[in-house]
Amino acid sequence: MRILGIDPGYAILGWGVIDVIGNRFSVVDYGAITTDTSMNMPCRLEALYDGLTEIMSKYQPDEASIEELFFNSNAKTAILVGEARGVAVLACQKGNLKINEYTPLQIKQALVGYGRADKQQIQYMVKTMLNLKAAPKPDDTADALAAAICHAHSANTKNILKGVKL
Amino acid sequence: MRILGIDPGYAILGWGVIDVIGNRFSVVDYGAITTDTSMNMPCRLEALYDGLTEIMSKYQPDEASIEELFFNSNAKTAILVGEARGVAVLACQKGNLKINEYTPLQIKQALVGYGRADKQQIQYMVKTMLNLKAAPKPDDTADALAAAICHAHSANTKNILKGVKL
Repeated sequence: MRILGIDPGYAILGWGVIDVIGNRFSVVDYGAITTDTSMNMPCRLEALYDGLTEIMSKYQPDEASIEELFFNSNAKTAILVGEARGVAVLACQKGNLKINEYTPLQIKQALVGYGRADKQQIQYMVKTMLNLKAAPKPDDTADALAAAICHAHSANTKNILKGVKL
Repeated sequence: MRILGIDPGYAILGWGVIDVIGNRFSVVDYGAITTDTSMNMPCRLEALYDGLTEIMSKYQPDEASIEELFFNSNAKTAILVGEARGVAVLACQKGNLKINEYTPLQIKQALVGYGRADKQQIQYMVKTMLNLKAAPKPDDTADALAAAICHAHSANTKNILKGVKL
């Protein structure tokens, strides 16, 4: 199974593609789609949508794993990040990917074993589990790969319970 | 000039198309795209995107006028409505419409003359200005037509200042 992990954002959208065979992961590619502050929001949303569509067309993932957003404070920022997330979800839906969503807590628990893990611990685990030479940068890319790994774990667990091998 | 007004939402997205010649408005069509709670969010976002694309293809508007969102309270709701708004903006961008955005305050001021107007006053003004027999329902549809009228006013004012007739 090939999974596209996405960490949504309008200035930086992190993405990472991994292959999963049994309980082994291997990284296919990863990066970030960035949009410039000089662009208006419609152009930024279009760049995110087109960028993700291109990535899906190139790597042909089977499923997507998208981080859910949580905000306690600024509703204005929540709306803008929500807009970017909506466009990312639409791109995956139009690409016929099965879409799976995980909270930051679920992702942290899947990678580090507890929900209060910090950014550096996540990066270290992503680097180690995927045999990378360095932690992927920016953070958003590591978070996207973490979302992909989280879904791989979850899908594996479900299949083990069903007696199926991936 | 033909304007597509949009009041974004994920359960109900209001839309309205008006024609503007000078300072006269006429309504072309209006309605609401509704998505059912039984659908998952990716399917709802796709239904909104496809619905708007169909409306643009049918009525060929020149410009879009989309209400900006404001939330003081629930960030979770803000993210979901933000997702719907992002998809609506993307649909207009992909349809090559010029996208104009107005705050609820600007829309109320354009229609009723002051920013604390209530829903009923907005509905009454939309009904009167567009010579409708009844106020458009649901509220989201009236709000979408109000956004379109607001942009017509604004574009008219800009053109009068420039000495140009629409």
